[in-house]
Amino acid sequence: MQPIIIALDAMGGDNAPEAVVRGALLALDKWPQVKIILVGNEELINECLLKVTGADVPPARPRTKPNVDSGRLEILHASEVITTDEHPTSAIRQKRDSSILVGLGLVKNGRAQAFASAGNTGALLTGAAVTIGRIPGIERPALATLIPGEQRPFFLIDSGANADCKPQYLVQFAKMGAAYMERVMELPNPRVGLINIGVESEKGNELSKEAHTLLKSCGLNFVGNVEARDIPANAADVLVCDGFVGNVVLKYTEGLSKTLMGIIKAELLKSPVSKLGALLAAGAFKRIKKRFDYSEVGGAPFLGLKALVVKAHGSSDARAIAGAVGQCVLFVESGALETIKASI
Amino acid sequence: MQPIIIALDAMGGDNAPEAVVRGALLALDKWPQVKIILVGNEELINECLLKVTGADVPPARPRTKPNVDSGRLEILHASEVITTDEHPTSAIRQKRDSSILVGLGLVKNGRAQAFASAGNTGALLTGAAVTIGRIPGIERPALATLIPGEQRPFFLIDSGANADCKPQYLVQFAKMGAAYMERVMELPNPRVGLINIGVESEKGNELSKEAHTLLKSCGLNFVGNVEARDIPANAADVLVCDGFVGNVVLKYTEGLSKTLMGIIKAELLKSPVSKLGALLAAGAFKRIKKRFDYSEVGGAPFLGLKALVVKAHGSSDARAIAGAVGQCVLFVESGALETIKASI
Repeated sequence: MQPIIIALDAMGGDNAPEAVVRGALLALDKWPQVKIILVGNEELINECLLKVTGADVPPARPRTKPNVDSGRLEILHASEVITTDEHPTSAIRQKRDSSILVGLGLVKNGRAQAFASAGNTGALLTGAAVTIGRIPGIERPALATLIPGEQRPFFLIDSGANADCKPQYLVQFAKMGAAYMERVMELPNPRVGLINIGVESEKGNELSKEAHTLLKSCGLNFVGNVEARDIPANAADVLVCDGFVGNVVLKYTEGLSKTLMGIIKAELLKSPVSKLGALLAAGAFKRIKKRFDYSEVGGAPFLGLKALVVKAHGSSDARAIAGAVGQCVLFVESGALETIKASI
Repeated sequence: MQPIIIALDAMGGDNAPEAVVRGALLALDKWPQVKIILVGNEELINECLLKVTGADVPPARPRTKPNVDSGRLEILHASEVITTDEHPTSAIRQKRDSSILVGLGLVKNGRAQAFASAGNTGALLTGAAVTIGRIPGIERPALATLIPGEQRPFFLIDSGANADCKPQYLVQFAKMGAAYMERVMELPNPRVGLINIGVESEKGNELSKEAHTLLKSCGLNFVGNVEARDIPANAADVLVCDGFVGNVVLKYTEGLSKTLMGIIKAELLKSPVSKLGALLAAGAFKRIKKRFDYSEVGGAPFLGLKALVVKAHGSSDARAIAGAVGQCVLFVESGALETIKASI
């Protein structure tokens, strides 16, 4: 069997490079079919590897667990780093030897089947669109995120790549999202919904009204408008919207869940009796936290490109990075890219 | 002291007219300075009053609690009802004797100082704009909702009236919202934030980028862009956005809180130990539920009109209706309308 080669931006995210290095090792442990190329400052990456495994890789085989076959982990030096506060377009133009551009290059020239980064979102998206190129028929690639729902996760597309959209973009998002859910998540005939401010077809802004008309006749299993109130209860499997609304929904999910759990914790600690209650219910709370943990999901694929690029959360820890690698594996093994190309 | 006269749409909302009648009685009990005019089908309203109090009002004085002075409760007959699924503009045009239009007429001609309805939002907003008219300098009146936050509620404007907005509308929303928070909520120098998909000023869609520039120089305490992740943690006291994004945030708050609480409940019931824990923590859970209960807030004022119109939640119960009356009282007594007019 040919290995799946995944390139990781070792320098991207709040906890880089250590979280990325640890995440890579976790992923290598979990998916024996995977080879990883860590892209970034070689010296720093080796330092991290030494710290984590007790040996630098390659060339030496690590002496301690996690037991990494050096042939499965490679470092590709990139001298520059694009930070999160840099302007995407100018950073992409100026830092040709940044980990993001070098990593994207690996996917572009076929040396890796996927590239994942927790770094500057704008730079990753701009760089990816420029370097890798779009699938014919896709005018705007979009970020697609799996979000935990009441019964199961749903797919939010566009969750932040295109702040201003035209109606036909949303139809393209819907097609890509449905193909992904069908192929990667193995959900037959996924229900596609349009995030809107009323269920009636004439409700909404100019964009959503026109998109509704187009979606009705695009051949997908379109279930109509979905009000934000019904999003968490799995009103649809694929939810389309422009990248502004999608990013608001994505980040609000994170913020509101965190605030609610914080308030619950604070209230429970207010009296000894409820504190005892919380202690007894600790297992249940752990399960809840796990269900709403972004690191369980991993990363958001940037759909519509000729190759797979995954954006991991900026505050990704090792587990989230491993999750992003897991998503790449699922995506590549399912043949989702071909399905998406065929669906357009 | 002159009474504050508040008109209530007795026919609006999922639980009308009974919830409205009960809510009116609760409000009369709570605010002795208030007089209420129930607008709607006289026969149905009287039936409800009979059921609730054991007597019809007026003219007879109710024989049982709640002890209502008949002089403080009046019924104004309106023969038509606009249902929630009717098209706003045509309903407003055709149903001249609907409870919504008759109620708005009371505010227009000065017989009441405020009108509150849990009915068809579009019809209420369209009817209000046409009947009552805008404050000079306000191009689009906006719905403004108090949403529970981590430390205290924040004000979301526009939460659903204008799906498509121009940048200057958002500045007008900000001015009205700040005046309201300062005057009604007694919060000095409220922090105004712009909901956006990045904190940097160049982030966002066309609307938010232009609105950011205008807000920076409008004389308010503008704290910049607020990412949705930071909304619940009180990143700002007044959050402005277009009515599409605002409605998504409003309804998602409701949906996600409900789903999260449901998941917590389901998880807690999974084992006898955690069930016991939940039982011990019941008081804490009650407080949490109360904090996130829309009926505690009451209704959303429709700001930018020459008089006060309040939209109550469609599924309002008696307590929520009373809450909406309470908001009218606060608004009228604080002189917020004059402050808003002066702030433009």
